[in-house]
Amino acid sequence: MRAVDLIVKKRDGGSLEPQEIDFLVDGFTRGDIPDYQFSSLLMAIVLRGMSPAETARLTEAMIRSGEVIDLAGVPGPLVDKHSTGGVGDKISLVLAPVAAACGLRVPMMSGRSLGHTGGTLDKLESIPGYRTDLPVERFAQALREVGFGMIGQSEMVVPADRRMYALRDVTGTVESVPLITASIMSKKFAEGADALVFDVKCGSGAFMKNPDEARALARSLVSTGAGLGRKVAAVITDMDQPLGRAVGNFLEVEESAACLQGKGPSDITDLTCRLAGWMLVLGGKAADAGAGEREARRRLSDGSAWKLFLKNVEFQGGDVACVIRPEKGPRARLSKSVTAPRAGYVTRVDAYKVGVASVILGAGRSRKEDKVFPGVGILLSRVCGEQADRGDEVCRVLGEDEGKVEEAVTLLESAWEYGDRPVSRGPLVLQEISAE
Amino acid sequence: MRAVDLIVKKRDGGSLEPQEIDFLVDGFTRGDIPDYQFSSLLMAIVLRGMSPAETARLTEAMIRSGEVIDLAGVPGPLVDKHSTGGVGDKISLVLAPVAAACGLRVPMMSGRSLGHTGGTLDKLESIPGYRTDLPVERFAQALREVGFGMIGQSEMVVPADRRMYALRDVTGTVESVPLITASIMSKKFAEGADALVFDVKCGSGAFMKNPDEARALARSLVSTGAGLGRKVAAVITDMDQPLGRAVGNFLEVEESAACLQGKGPSDITDLTCRLAGWMLVLGGKAADAGAGEREARRRLSDGSAWKLFLKNVEFQGGDVACVIRPEKGPRARLSKSVTAPRAGYVTRVDAYKVGVASVILGAGRSRKEDKVFPGVGILLSRVCGEQADRGDEVCRVLGEDEGKVEEAVTLLESAWEYGDRPVSRGPLVLQEISAE
Repeated sequence: MRAVDLIVKKRDGGSLEPQEIDFLVDGFTRGDIPDYQFSSLLMAIVLRGMSPAETARLTEAMIRSGEVIDLAGVPGPLVDKHSTGGVGDKISLVLAPVAAACGLRVPMMSGRSLGHTGGTLDKLESIPGYRTDLPVERFAQALREVGFGMIGQSEMVVPADRRMYALRDVTGTVESVPLITASIMSKKFAEGADALVFDVKCGSGAFMKNPDEARALARSLVSTGAGLGRKVAAVITDMDQPLGRAVGNFLEVEESAACLQGKGPSDITDLTCRLAGWMLVLGGKAADAGAGEREARRRLSDGSAWKLFLKNVEFQGGDVACVIRPEKGPRARLSKSVTAPRAGYVTRVDAYKVGVASVILGAGRSRKEDKVFPGVGILLSRVCGEQADRGDEVCRVLGEDEGKVEEAVTLLESAWEYGDRPVSRGPLVLQEISAE
Repeated sequence: MRAVDLIVKKRDGGSLEPQEIDFLVDGFTRGDIPDYQFSSLLMAIVLRGMSPAETARLTEAMIRSGEVIDLAGVPGPLVDKHSTGGVGDKISLVLAPVAAACGLRVPMMSGRSLGHTGGTLDKLESIPGYRTDLPVERFAQALREVGFGMIGQSEMVVPADRRMYALRDVTGTVESVPLITASIMSKKFAEGADALVFDVKCGSGAFMKNPDEARALARSLVSTGAGLGRKVAAVITDMDQPLGRAVGNFLEVEESAACLQGKGPSDITDLTCRLAGWMLVLGGKAADAGAGEREARRRLSDGSAWKLFLKNVEFQGGDVACVIRPEKGPRARLSKSVTAPRAGYVTRVDAYKVGVASVILGAGRSRKEDKVFPGVGILLSRVCGEQADRGDEVCRVLGEDEGKVEEAVTLLESAWEYGDRPVSRGPLVLQEISAE
């Protein structure tokens, strides 16, 4: 078998056989197939696509390239959620304890912030003392004793993805539904989950800017999951405006804690319970997403999810007092208001601009090596549908550096849109896709 | 400017600006743009194409990557011909002296055999003593004193093409009309010609297997030539069956010498004079290709082209006696007949199979480092339209190694096709394309 012949086959629109995909992925991971051949193949895949069967095999070959987390000793069902990334998206922090309170085990393996979107690991690590680098045995113990655990991905898991992503990033081959699918799926299934719910974000603050792109990815995730014999569902949700009212690491921990105590914004609560509903369906604990959602609301309102959250923070070494009384947690040094330039109703808050502003402040990273500040961020005082008089605060910027605060304020002034009539934000859940 | 952004632009179907093409070619040639980015760009070009303006700029950028042969001291018009490669294609050997005899200067820079097609340099070097590595001053002197010179391409000319071709060969990005166009055009115009006639071969023995592919390349060559402000014409000719009756280096020298003395096969003579006709048109020495063709026939039949050929052989160090009396030239040790398995008429001789058989015998190379034997090859005793009884010789195989002779014989037995009625070979010239 020669790599060049397989490149030509894909270039001419052909389908790669399972053993051909294995040959390419194994050869690339071992370094036998050089980068210049693999990047040409990647471009052919971007422009010619891959069938669901090819995508499933690619995912399997990538999983096999490294270690797989063995959670066989943990009683199931093991169900996780993955979000494609958004602004103010602290759903994981609320959802994991809710799902665990409903009887699922949630082995949550998360990423760090990159680009304009936040990362669950950075949020958790803003709690003083919280460790996300648990060894596998301790992670399994968390699942058994608390019901959920939150860790980062080991360097040993799916090395093929790390190599491929580094190459895709510099060769214009990031934007491909099958490649994105295989990248996401390989990492998530290497972590030991039995079933997965995907939150495919759509809108200015998401990587998928329009519904067609989001739908294509959601369908690909579900069909590839079916091809792998795994239970998968995908929920396409709105990310044109930020979720909740807090953007920034510890600010989002605080908002998550409020949600878990029944005092959070309704969009966070609603989306969390809907996603939990799907997790319960896949885990065999609810007949349909509606029934699962109702069960999740009960566990949220009866305080059992909140108790599990505190138990997890303690288990993973975090300062529980800071979570219970957030005023004790990390705080930014500087604070400045952005005000409404006119009277009217807020018609839209551009999630992308808010995300970029949060990165400027130091809540996220523009490069992997950037340092993240726990207390900085943006608090949204007026969101879509709410009224403001001229000069009213629409958001509060919390930062550590005056120049960066000014830069963020300038950007945020253009993030709010106003109208003369009240408008309500569109639906949060745009579409739900599951395998038959 | 970042390479990755330009890759994405081409991937998404955009047109690259002149300075963007310069940036990419210059960066790749200098080694600033790594192979893995350039191969991804090449695949995007294969699948998205390039406009005539982009192709012309790519050609210019490639020419600029190295040295350009300066023939300013040679009185013009300097007109050359380039063939895309065929089997038994010794046209250059006859055409260069014919065109020179008509008053053109022909600076012919040729390649070596690779794959199933022959190479003009290998044919010339089968004449004992003949040198194709003339220094530029000596090449210019040949043009002034003989009217034509035959040399190989210097390593200093178009280094971008050498690098690009090596990468294309292993990344599945050879088959692209704009990339093939830029590769051919850059090399030919770096050699100092004012005008060029392209012989675009079409059929089983050519790289372009069907008329649509050949037409696309011919049009691209002519339009790119126009974009570069150069005079270019393209003639699409049949290469489904070999040209003439000899395939092999010195065998083809012998057949060329016969043609120049008015004793050659008519297909060689006809195609030579037609291509010379176009060269005379581009050189401003004929009103149209028909008039030019008639002038070429006169110079062929009055012996002036033959005299120039002998003068060139002497000038370039070759043994003139061997050309005048080919029985003194290199001869293969072994000889074996392939015979007709039935009585009938030859309806087709598959040029590709004959070409592969000649490579097996050692007339060409399957790898660049292979040695070439001057005397081996195939003499066609029966060609399309001719009658054979069962057991009659249809070709004679001349070789140096018994195993390879047997291998060639077996392959050649399947190259001849037979029928019950006489058929005539289709037209040699399929289409002629020139800029308005």
